[in-house]
Amino acid sequence: MGERVRESSVLLTGASGRVGRAILGRLGDAYDWRLLDRDRPTHEFDHEFVVADITDEEAVAEAMVGIDAVVHLAGDPRPEAPWDSVLANNIDGTRTVLEAAVEAGVERFVFASSNHAVGGYETEDRVPKLYRPPDEFRLDGTELPRPGNLYGVSKAAGETLCRYYHDESGMGVVCVRIGNLTESHPPKDYERGQAMWLSYRDCAHLFERCLDADYGFEIVYGISDNDRKYYSIDRAREVLGYDPQDNSADHIDD
Amino acid sequence: MGERVRESSVLLTGASGRVGRAILGRLGDAYDWRLLDRDRPTHEFDHEFVVADITDEEAVAEAMVGIDAVVHLAGDPRPEAPWDSVLANNIDGTRTVLEAAVEAGVERFVFASSNHAVGGYETEDRVPKLYRPPDEFRLDGTELPRPGNLYGVSKAAGETLCRYYHDESGMGVVCVRIGNLTESHPPKDYERGQAMWLSYRDCAHLFERCLDADYGFEIVYGISDNDRKYYSIDRAREVLGYDPQDNSADHIDD
Repeated sequence: MGERVRESSVLLTGASGRVGRAILGRLGDAYDWRLLDRDRPTHEFDHEFVVADITDEEAVAEAMVGIDAVVHLAGDPRPEAPWDSVLANNIDGTRTVLEAAVEAGVERFVFASSNHAVGGYETEDRVPKLYRPPDEFRLDGTELPRPGNLYGVSKAAGETLCRYYHDESGMGVVCVRIGNLTESHPPKDYERGQAMWLSYRDCAHLFERCLDADYGFEIVYGISDNDRKYYSIDRAREVLGYDPQDNSADHIDD
Repeated sequence: MGERVRESSVLLTGASGRVGRAILGRLGDAYDWRLLDRDRPTHEFDHEFVVADITDEEAVAEAMVGIDAVVHLAGDPRPEAPWDSVLANNIDGTRTVLEAAVEAGVERFVFASSNHAVGGYETEDRVPKLYRPPDEFRLDGTELPRPGNLYGVSKAAGETLCRYYHDESGMGVVCVRIGNLTESHPPKDYERGQAMWLSYRDCAHLFERCLDADYGFEIVYGISDNDRKYYSIDRAREVLGYDPQDNSADHIDD
């Protein structure tokens, strides 16, 4: 169960998005990055940059050459995205990236799933006490998906595709159900967002652990160590060695 | 928790397939059926028959007018079906049928899922003892999907869509993970098929229960009461009142 050598080549899809920024801001020098995004970058990156759409099988296969690990963030990120978009970008697109990764012999695949894959658990009788520290309700990643929107449906489908490609190929795959990622400060006046806050620092650390740890197939929650939480981070701690430093409770009176 | 009146109008998609035959053979007179299939029927049906593709939103919406319940069997049924086909027919098509059903105020929706949604649990260390009576391993519908093929991925995605549309609308939805349906006799020399055998008689009875019982959202296994089994039928018994009469063990020496 050795640590990975840091010379590994990592393909980061959806590199220009917010999660990509959180990762590259702290891990830019830690791996040999190949960035991929649908649009030309609006600023300079210190890494190879491939402009390609993840629904383009040929372009994705080409971007996968020589890659050891994939962090797959690309997709329509809007919770209110229409079905046709999440079907094409998030379901079909994720399948294209997984297929290319297996073909290329990639060893680790990190999939950006979402809290929206399980948003339906926030039922009327649970909310808002679910968001407050004394409440003991926890989701831990073993529960069935229960999306609150079609975007969440697409992320759950992506997780099932990940499970299938792991079983087929042995490629290590971890699905991270990312919470509410904001820079420096958790969202204000938004209990739900405080409960699932993920700081930039903890986000980068979590993805670093996803790239360096050994695992088979995992579904983990990506949140900081918030007092308020209804997502367990036990599995991320145990399997990945995730050790978050931030807690939304430390910021609530800021 | 009253029984449904039997005058209910039921839309049966994929009516010309094998499951449709098992259902209509015994329940042809029990409901007011509207049959739908992509192809013109090759024999006469005693019911209204709509020729339409479930990926055609307008045609599906039209077929849904005046319908109380839906049995959704349509889709590419091949375990080895290619991704593009299951993406279009089984994922996108199921979403089209669900959306139309909710729009039309349908009360009950029965989704033909499949054992292939969880085929990946049949791992090397479990098989073949999994298929034999003393083995205690059971899947019960609460486990995460673990498909053995892309067809299974598409059925798992259909289940997640069902969950979402149930949560959104309150429409009662049951997903039936259908086992190995064969007429009169379980498959010979195929332990897996014997373990998940579903007789035509039990199949019709199960779908009748799905149309008549009251439920919110359920995932159940559709198999006979086989001595050999690794799927639990407890939930189908409890919630639906399923009372299977057949057992593959009674036929093994036939």
